[in-house]
Amino acid sequence: MSDPSSPTPAPSSPAPSSIAPGSIATTPIAANLLALDQVTYNADGLVASIVQDIETGAVLMMAWMNAETLQMSLEQGRTVFWSRSRSEVWRKGDTSGDRQFIREASYDCDGDTLLFKVEQEGNGACHTGNYSCFFRSFDEAPAT
Amino acid sequence: MSDPSSPTPAPSSPAPSSIAPGSIATTPIAANLLALDQVTYNADGLVASIVQDIETGAVLMMAWMNAETLQMSLEQGRTVFWSRSRSEVWRKGDTSGDRQFIREASYDCDGDTLLFKVEQEGNGACHTGNYSCFFRSFDEAPAT
Repeated sequence: MSDPSSPTPAPSSPAPSSIAPGSIATTPIAANLLALDQVTYNADGLVASIVQDIETGAVLMMAWMNAETLQMSLEQGRTVFWSRSRSEVWRKGDTSGDRQFIREASYDCDGDTLLFKVEQEGNGACHTGNYSCFFRSFDEAPAT
Repeated sequence: MSDPSSPTPAPSSPAPSSIAPGSIATTPIAANLLALDQVTYNADGLVASIVQDIETGAVLMMAWMNAETLQMSLEQGRTVFWSRSRSEVWRKGDTSGDRQFIREASYDCDGDTLLFKVEQEGNGACHTGNYSCFFRSFDEAPAT
């Protein structure tokens, strides 16, 4: 039984957060340095990175990271790619608003492909407005 | 009412198949030629190809196809890759027995990545014996 003379405890408050109410939480991935050493980059210094929706299992897109944007992705908990066409760092969603919040990050048996399971914000991953970039099947004519 | 003098029809027999009883059915993908034209190959004539388990949603592996092995994959209904390390056609499962039977095949918005949803046979996709090649997480030290 608690002492009736002790101060009434304050109602529990939510954990401090820099995230605006209603937005999706960011969770940095504490990467193991030996795991990071397993990544092998191609001749252009890039590694293929698959992004999968952790809720639906849908494969959303594939893009490329270099060592710098992989580090940024893990530290920031959001996917950050290297744009080969623009030759610049491309933090997914900064322009479109459709950010990808990383929940799990893994690398394959030979270290040359990464897999990020994310919470996808907004309209989806594809610049066409489709939720997944893989919205066209080989057994159909492409939409004109 | 059928003519009783006509020959008794034979009991309906299963569709002809070259597949042994009990094995997984092969379903060729009737690819649209305009869809095939959307695929863009890199400087080495290759296109990145993601393989996903259609039942569990697990991303199993990523490998590369050229135009020839993409055609073979669709026609044969099994994944056929181009092995960059061995410089040869690599029909998945011919050695290991762990074949991948294609159920859906799609290509992404810029045509440089493919997605195959498959029924995975046997032990799985990875030469290490793991079901998926993505069996290591960045937040753990690699197994020694």
